[in-house]
Amino acid sequence: MTTATLSGAFASAADFTAALGALTDPDPAAIAAARARQGQLTKPPGSLGRLEDLAVFLAGWQGTEKPSLQRGRTAIFAGNHGVTVHGVSAFPAEVTVQMVANFAAGGAAINQLAKAAGLELQVVPLDLDTPTADFTQGPAMSEAECLAAINAGAATVDPGLQLLTVGEMGIGNTTSAAALAAISFGGNAADWVGAGTGVDDAGLVRKRAVVEQALTLHAPAAGSAFDKLARVGGREIAAIAGAVLRARQLRIPVLLDGFITCAAIAPLAVEAPGITAHCLAGHCSAEQGHGRMLGHLGLEPLLRLDMRLGEGSGAAVAAHILRSALAAHNGMATFAEAGVADG
Amino acid sequence: MTTATLSGAFASAADFTAALGALTDPDPAAIAAARARQGQLTKPPGSLGRLEDLAVFLAGWQGTEKPSLQRGRTAIFAGNHGVTVHGVSAFPAEVTVQMVANFAAGGAAINQLAKAAGLELQVVPLDLDTPTADFTQGPAMSEAECLAAINAGAATVDPGLQLLTVGEMGIGNTTSAAALAAISFGGNAADWVGAGTGVDDAGLVRKRAVVEQALTLHAPAAGSAFDKLARVGGREIAAIAGAVLRARQLRIPVLLDGFITCAAIAPLAVEAPGITAHCLAGHCSAEQGHGRMLGHLGLEPLLRLDMRLGEGSGAAVAAHILRSALAAHNGMATFAEAGVADG
Repeated sequence: MTTATLSGAFASAADFTAALGALTDPDPAAIAAARARQGQLTKPPGSLGRLEDLAVFLAGWQGTEKPSLQRGRTAIFAGNHGVTVHGVSAFPAEVTVQMVANFAAGGAAINQLAKAAGLELQVVPLDLDTPTADFTQGPAMSEAECLAAINAGAATVDPGLQLLTVGEMGIGNTTSAAALAAISFGGNAADWVGAGTGVDDAGLVRKRAVVEQALTLHAPAAGSAFDKLARVGGREIAAIAGAVLRARQLRIPVLLDGFITCAAIAPLAVEAPGITAHCLAGHCSAEQGHGRMLGHLGLEPLLRLDMRLGEGSGAAVAAHILRSALAAHNGMATFAEAGVADG
Repeated sequence: MTTATLSGAFASAADFTAALGALTDPDPAAIAAARARQGQLTKPPGSLGRLEDLAVFLAGWQGTEKPSLQRGRTAIFAGNHGVTVHGVSAFPAEVTVQMVANFAAGGAAINQLAKAAGLELQVVPLDLDTPTADFTQGPAMSEAECLAAINAGAATVDPGLQLLTVGEMGIGNTTSAAALAAISFGGNAADWVGAGTGVDDAGLVRKRAVVEQALTLHAPAAGSAFDKLARVGGREIAAIAGAVLRARQLRIPVLLDGFITCAAIAPLAVEAPGITAHCLAGHCSAEQGHGRMLGHLGLEPLLRLDMRLGEGSGAAVAAHILRSALAAHNGMATFAEAGVADG
């Protein structure tokens, strides 16, 4: 378990809201310099497509013409959900703690994928022996519980990082994510509920009913982004929201993963649409609501590989795209250096 | 310049055609073993999406349950085109040789991208001081010239390779590729001609006219895949066709790049549709005909990043996806090993 540093912690729900209202911008001089460099490299202008945009994006947030990814971190947050009592998942709730042990032992997908992408891996289990409350009956978390989870997320954002990728593990958390998406962006349960890890048809019906119940109970009263996270989120989801906002304060770019990591910032995006400016969508997952969610967030995914594992797995694969972008940006010769005719 | 080894060379046009009629298959036992392994790894079944399919694909062609990519090679072929006299490119023909020098000096995009992906880089310039003939007036290459180019391609396929990615450099070669696509898959010049490296509107009109002229001259008489390559192809394009077919003989999987590398196998796919079975499409480029071409080839691209550089650049970025797939496939724990409940 990670404890937030004093400097990085949000003091209260109001402090979180205030931070969301005071978002940092990228460095315009670094953006201009990186864009100019792209125009001098030995290739037709624009021919590296999104790789060029990614290099410029990283330049802006890192504040340098030649950004790098020597220190990138995958932070995975794990939480348990009271709503699993309704049979919304294909796996038993014990799998959350078993998978955290698998992360610790190095046996999970994210261990291999983060290593292959040269990312540090930090696993943050959040009170796994105390699931959130069943949000069909009341708020999932108290204000104090939600703030603690947000700050556990914020604490993973080492100021020396050049990239943060976020992931999660939590049996039942696509149900929470669907409720959070609906309460943030509107729509009904059917719009946002998908098969998750692979629930069967009967489970899908139960999952939709649970989300409808949650919306009936919480939607009329839901207020701030913080309040929405507390009402229908989960500890790992609130932690992601905290990590993403803390990263923004530190101008550290973020690579999001799938449906759940995007749901974590959905309420933030309603309150402060600019929150996504330092974020990239690693992929569009096979979870049915993810494409719609990315549309609401205004993010174009880097990959579409029909992945639906979570754990930050899609983001870790996408990190290679960023590395490729920087390899070209930083390593290529200019037309002048190479003696190549410029168009 | 590479010389084909005796064992790897095609003896004649007829020998090339015969090889195309005797395609190898992947190893069914390795496919079954790899598929079974995927079902035991600590993740919901299918949740790694295409990463699972890619691991199984590589297992089949490498003939082992746990494939690897310790030896992958990017082979780039460069050629010059007589058709450039018609002003079909945004760049002068001298850029081909200048870019080959840039490859040798390590300054091009593919140098950085291949290195980042852990791929060997082999650059094969093909008679750059002797452009192909202007194919609006007759065949681009004689049978002997086309065979030599095909064998230069075949010679790059070291039997010890576990993956071959192909790329090209040749001012004017999107014009050749468009003609090859049309003569193989039908359609007119407008269906297949795009902006290439960035030709202006007047150039685009000239480019379309050149392709229409080529179709009028060659389409009625065009015969075998070899004949089509000789009529409207180029040396680098024929080399790619030779490399892909040779790789198939050796059961080495191939990662294709953009519009031109796909055009190189278009005539082969008409004659032997199974030729694409050992091929993956690294990406769908921004060149307008590429999406249509991939449809004809039955290939779903791994990436869509609006790249349009050539050089094998998109394939090199996509190679990271294969590495990620194998990292998960080979490195993950099984449910039994990790003590995780299996659904």
